[in-house]
Amino acid sequence: MTKNKVCCIIGTGLIGGSISYAIRKHKLASHIIGVDTNKANANKALALGIVHEVLPLRKAIPKCDYIILAVPVHTITQLLPIILNHITTQVVIDTGSTKANIIQCVQHHTKRKQYVATHPMWGTEHSGPSAAMHNAFTHKAVVICNKNESSAPALAFTHKLYTLLGMHILYMTAQEHDMHTAYISHISHITSFALANTVLQKEQKTNTIFELASGGFESTVRLAKSNAAMWVPIFINNKKNILDVLMELEVQLAEFKKAMLNNDEAALAQLIIKANKIKKILK
Amino acid sequence: MTKNKVCCIIGTGLIGGSISYAIRKHKLASHIIGVDTNKANANKALALGIVHEVLPLRKAIPKCDYIILAVPVHTITQLLPIILNHITTQVVIDTGSTKANIIQCVQHHTKRKQYVATHPMWGTEHSGPSAAMHNAFTHKAVVICNKNESSAPALAFTHKLYTLLGMHILYMTAQEHDMHTAYISHISHITSFALANTVLQKEQKTNTIFELASGGFESTVRLAKSNAAMWVPIFINNKKNILDVLMELEVQLAEFKKAMLNNDEAALAQLIIKANKIKKILK
Repeated sequence: MTKNKVCCIIGTGLIGGSISYAIRKHKLASHIIGVDTNKANANKALALGIVHEVLPLRKAIPKCDYIILAVPVHTITQLLPIILNHITTQVVIDTGSTKANIIQCVQHHTKRKQYVATHPMWGTEHSGPSAAMHNAFTHKAVVICNKNESSAPALAFTHKLYTLLGMHILYMTAQEHDMHTAYISHISHITSFALANTVLQKEQKTNTIFELASGGFESTVRLAKSNAAMWVPIFINNKKNILDVLMELEVQLAEFKKAMLNNDEAALAQLIIKANKIKKILK
Repeated sequence: MTKNKVCCIIGTGLIGGSISYAIRKHKLASHIIGVDTNKANANKALALGIVHEVLPLRKAIPKCDYIILAVPVHTITQLLPIILNHITTQVVIDTGSTKANIIQCVQHHTKRKQYVATHPMWGTEHSGPSAAMHNAFTHKAVVICNKNESSAPALAFTHKLYTLLGMHILYMTAQEHDMHTAYISHISHITSFALANTVLQKEQKTNTIFELASGGFESTVRLAKSNAAMWVPIFINNKKNILDVLMELEVQLAEFKKAMLNNDEAALAQLIIKANKIKKILK
């Protein structure tokens, strides 16, 4: 990991842009090539100093030492086999929010071992190069999945890269990852979208919402600003786990409903006291 | 509204404590008496400088010029008629999160006109005097309900008090208030509690949640730390409106479920794009 490495970032938006800022700050590449099919985003990334140069994918691959894929998960499944077809010695790292489907699409690829499946646990409800943030990944967790399917050098490189970015590395299987993220990230987005739609459906006077909405509303509905291009593929690709969680959520909501219908204050208190245990987990 | 007024704050926790800090800062009372049946909280409020003195309710009433009630909504319905029985010329203001049930319990009281029903739209998931914050209410909205049922002087006093605290005043009926807050505040708490219980139910390894949980989870589940003593009475007292919203939320969640089950990417995108309209309302 020396100064003269060339890094290729595919997808110069929120995640790719923020990783690029971090790589530049920590001098983990001397040159960063951006690849983005959205020309406006590519130009913006160039203007913001996220990348040094913008190139088409096929021209970028032979010029770089390592590749970071930061595009929506269904685009990763399309691009990853093509990228592995074209690399020589490069390490390829993806940052997608689902892992099983991505790993599966290159399961039998001859270059599989040069690919490391990762998920840095950070994001915001914003998107595009302008949403990229400095120091986004410091002290955050990153998951590396199915490590035995990657080569020792590719894994060592990825481990070192994330460590130098100040991240805490967790290893698990793709199945474990997809189950945990359904609970910890994906379902929060579903409830935020559904809550926003509930309010927008019923509250015709949006001015009243605006004037009344206090911190609680803002924080639970914030994720509803997240973009469809990123989240539709996640919901489709992690559908089994998300539907499991959604069913459990329906059960939990029904408990509140039943307790209210019965004016059962003791049951409501129990449900809330149980939920309060989340204090131990959150700061 | 001069420096030599005496204010009585009933309930010295998050809301009462924060109002007291604001009243002191803006010199809207020369002396603040705290009333709290929780002795530990009363002593804490005294130690923190939230109140100058702690007295039992009956001793506090004759000594003060105005009274602010900041206790859970079912306690307000118990105390408010008693307080109105004992006042002479004092103005009584409550800060409860539901309004119809509170107003109803003093509907025919001879001193009804000295009471003003209000709801300052601010709060956090924390409680008790230590959770009280300085400048909490500046630039926030406050709702005053059924203003025609209060006397002109009581209303003018309350209007001036909240204005001097830097708040934006909205007038509406108790029914309108309870319907809007069901959408904007109460349902967010139900979904946060239910989401916390969903995760706690399924994720046995709380360490994994802790390590993986990123900003999105934290923000949607933050309200699940809120305390039962405050929220059980709100859920019971605004049950009709909350159940209406909960039913609409179930419909919206079912839309996501159906789209996922059908692998219907277009429907998912539409649901998300619709939810994104919340951007116009939130900052």
